[in-house]
Amino acid sequence: MPILGDTGGEEKGLGAMSKEKRVDVAIIGAGTAGLSACSEVRKATDNFVLLEAGPHGSTCARVGCMPSKVLLQVAHDFHRRHVLGQEGIYGSEHLKVDYRKVLQYVRSLRDHFVQGVLQTVEQLGDHNIQGRVRFREPTVLEVNGQVIRAKRVIIATGSSPIVPGEWQAFSDRILTTDTIFEQEDLPSALAVVGLGAIGVEIGQALARLGCQVTGITQSEHVAGLTDPKVTAYMRETLQHEFPIYTGTITEVAGEGTQLALRFGDRTTRVASILASVGRRPNIAQLGLDALGIPFDTHGLPLYDRTTLQVKGYPIFIAGDVDGDRAVLHEAADDGRIAGFNSVQDEPHCFQRRTRLSIVFCEPNVAVVGRPFAELRQQDIAVGEVGFERQGRAKVMAENTGLLRVYGDKQSGCLLGAELAAPRGEHLAHLLAWAIQKQMTVFDLLQLPFYHPVIEEGLRTALRDLSRQVQASRPGFELAVCDSNAVADLG
Amino acid sequence: MPILGDTGGEEKGLGAMSKEKRVDVAIIGAGTAGLSACSEVRKATDNFVLLEAGPHGSTCARVGCMPSKVLLQVAHDFHRRHVLGQEGIYGSEHLKVDYRKVLQYVRSLRDHFVQGVLQTVEQLGDHNIQGRVRFREPTVLEVNGQVIRAKRVIIATGSSPIVPGEWQAFSDRILTTDTIFEQEDLPSALAVVGLGAIGVEIGQALARLGCQVTGITQSEHVAGLTDPKVTAYMRETLQHEFPIYTGTITEVAGEGTQLALRFGDRTTRVASILASVGRRPNIAQLGLDALGIPFDTHGLPLYDRTTLQVKGYPIFIAGDVDGDRAVLHEAADDGRIAGFNSVQDEPHCFQRRTRLSIVFCEPNVAVVGRPFAELRQQDIAVGEVGFERQGRAKVMAENTGLLRVYGDKQSGCLLGAELAAPRGEHLAHLLAWAIQKQMTVFDLLQLPFYHPVIEEGLRTALRDLSRQVQASRPGFELAVCDSNAVADLG
Repeated sequence: MPILGDTGGEEKGLGAMSKEKRVDVAIIGAGTAGLSACSEVRKATDNFVLLEAGPHGSTCARVGCMPSKVLLQVAHDFHRRHVLGQEGIYGSEHLKVDYRKVLQYVRSLRDHFVQGVLQTVEQLGDHNIQGRVRFREPTVLEVNGQVIRAKRVIIATGSSPIVPGEWQAFSDRILTTDTIFEQEDLPSALAVVGLGAIGVEIGQALARLGCQVTGITQSEHVAGLTDPKVTAYMRETLQHEFPIYTGTITEVAGEGTQLALRFGDRTTRVASILASVGRRPNIAQLGLDALGIPFDTHGLPLYDRTTLQVKGYPIFIAGDVDGDRAVLHEAADDGRIAGFNSVQDEPHCFQRRTRLSIVFCEPNVAVVGRPFAELRQQDIAVGEVGFERQGRAKVMAENTGLLRVYGDKQSGCLLGAELAAPRGEHLAHLLAWAIQKQMTVFDLLQLPFYHPVIEEGLRTALRDLSRQVQASRPGFELAVCDSNAVADLG
Repeated sequence: MPILGDTGGEEKGLGAMSKEKRVDVAIIGAGTAGLSACSEVRKATDNFVLLEAGPHGSTCARVGCMPSKVLLQVAHDFHRRHVLGQEGIYGSEHLKVDYRKVLQYVRSLRDHFVQGVLQTVEQLGDHNIQGRVRFREPTVLEVNGQVIRAKRVIIATGSSPIVPGEWQAFSDRILTTDTIFEQEDLPSALAVVGLGAIGVEIGQALARLGCQVTGITQSEHVAGLTDPKVTAYMRETLQHEFPIYTGTITEVAGEGTQLALRFGDRTTRVASILASVGRRPNIAQLGLDALGIPFDTHGLPLYDRTTLQVKGYPIFIAGDVDGDRAVLHEAADDGRIAGFNSVQDEPHCFQRRTRLSIVFCEPNVAVVGRPFAELRQQDIAVGEVGFERQGRAKVMAENTGLLRVYGDKQSGCLLGAELAAPRGEHLAHLLAWAIQKQMTVFDLLQLPFYHPVIEEGLRTALRDLSRQVQASRPGFELAVCDSNAVADLG
């Protein structure tokens, strides 16, 4: 690694300077992005440090994807009791939930997943330093009183739930994803404020488990959807499980053990609030603002999104801290790119994967490729399917959903999709892969769709789309062979 | 349609010949393939007949895919009670199954799906003739005493379950998919003989519902798998739900209300047998053997599998009757091809979809692309993943499964896969699409895999495969951009 030179290691016996540690790369944050960066950095140099201020274990494993998915799984399993009677299974009225046991179960699985992350960190031995980091200069950090001089720095400090300042007086009754899985018991009545991915997942889970949930959102949008038809469908579907109000909360007041929330001309009284109004980058305490680095309007150093390098500095930004594509697989890619580039002479830019976000409520919600709101309506054709009458969805007694696919009106090239669908997480992968491979709707219709599967619903939407595309369309879904010898596609 | 001429329609007032009906196309069989053929034929001519001897409604809707999927859904829902306790949901010991209600539910949904097929048939009006068909000449048919002279004939008569001749003495206690869904009650003890797709699906469903099921199979293979590791895994998994014996049944004897089955040195006593040893084409009664058409060893006219035309005759073979790829989407494709070709001067050959078969037991079983047994071991590398420790599978408490992917050892091109996996039906679609698009394992690893999803298990297998491929492998999963301008993949 010529660019990193050979002067690494701790400077010893230099008096006051003896506390200074010189490394090739300092990675700040031992979450998904930081650990991912670490695995790339180690391929090039053993002279690096991984610095972590907070608890180890990654947002995903500790307070994000994993515990929320476990809670949802329990909620979906309990909710399933409503279809058992019609199927000929009786006795479902005896099923009850023990909230304390549910939360213990969530934590026990959560701990299992966190353990996996901790083991990775432990294997780093002395490379791993626990402590709060401050920048003294762009490549000089201070942690636990020690100075670390790095050739390159990777900032992968993640993000934290936003709790509006005026709510902090009631902080014992304001829950976030950082605290909800730590509760001994679930609240009997809860306001979920903000209905993005987290609000919808936790809101539906708690409602299904029997909490009295009230959803409050500032916009009409839910679960990250932008397509007005899918949004309206999903909102209506969620409304069957808990009431949703659109409005801005103007006041939160304590009334004994309750909180009174005022929004519009309504007041709702609840035991707790789940604040799911967004996350902010963990960057304020790093002292970056004193270094003269130019910042964007979100308070982040200006950086190149293709290389993840902060413009003009040997600093890289990776993971949720950048507020962009805050999902695990993108954070992991960020980490790999930042880690790889941190040990190169010149940073490389990388082709990112097709955008994909999934909300694991029922029906699953997903936004794939270009969201509806980003597309010019005059350029696209839209194919649609509802799942009420879809064969397999009826067999599963999960026949709720609406899926819309967007294709280029001229060529039929698939551009994006938004959906609320049973098994939507899997349809979303098919769609994302097809979009990344730049497939047209006609290419897609040549592929196998088994029977009876939810994927046949997707095919209905694709056929609908294909009829609206202006490109000359094949008369037949199957391709005609070029010769008499039929290629065997396996 | 010049090839079909303009002489169609019923010949009137010609004395003895007045009973002769002249049509462009006669389609024998109103199931999936026949109706599919019909929809293509109608685009070219209104002068056709659809002839059906048996009950209308398609094998799939009446006695195949649909009722079996409903029965499995109920069984899986009932089986789920075993995980509720650990999740914090109590009272599952009160869940009981009412077999009669389960069967009523299966039939009520089945009737709904059959109704859809019947409506399609009814819309055909006079084109649709009910009656048993016999060939007099290759293009002259007799049905209900009427002679039909067709320019082209499509044979789409489907298949029927095989019941070995020596069992017929106990026919009231021998069940097949034709009769099992018609039962008022389920047998307390049942031998499932033959553990292909049908045997495994019905066997697991009945075992999960509480019947005492014994599985008996002539070979080590189950559920259509050919990969020895996946086969062994799946057999072992099924054995936890019902005993499976390998052997040939040498004797079936009545003992009061019971049947005693002898195989090897064992005797098993059951109330009924489910015969799931295969299906035979419904062709014997058509009188084809008197026409001098050459037959293959399976008793089918020799036909071209790329055009579906019987060699040298204006006759086409479509759907399950051909014993090849007896799954609904292939039968539908067969029908479309036969229907399309029946109204052309020269038949076209069509590129078939990548092979895909799915068994809807839990874990789902699938064979995709080229089965393991068809591949030359020296040419391939195999990637593997087990689902015991896979994250999402653990969250779903469905962490049972083994997936193996086969790639070309030199290029990494994906060739096939066999799997037993949670949500395997969806993984199978991803794999089939990737195989048909001739993707390599490196192409696949550039695509998005969300978190936490079952698809990440597939990624583990792909990474395992990628490490064994000899092609020079990219150092990084993501593609490097060609220029500084990063293409936005949507």
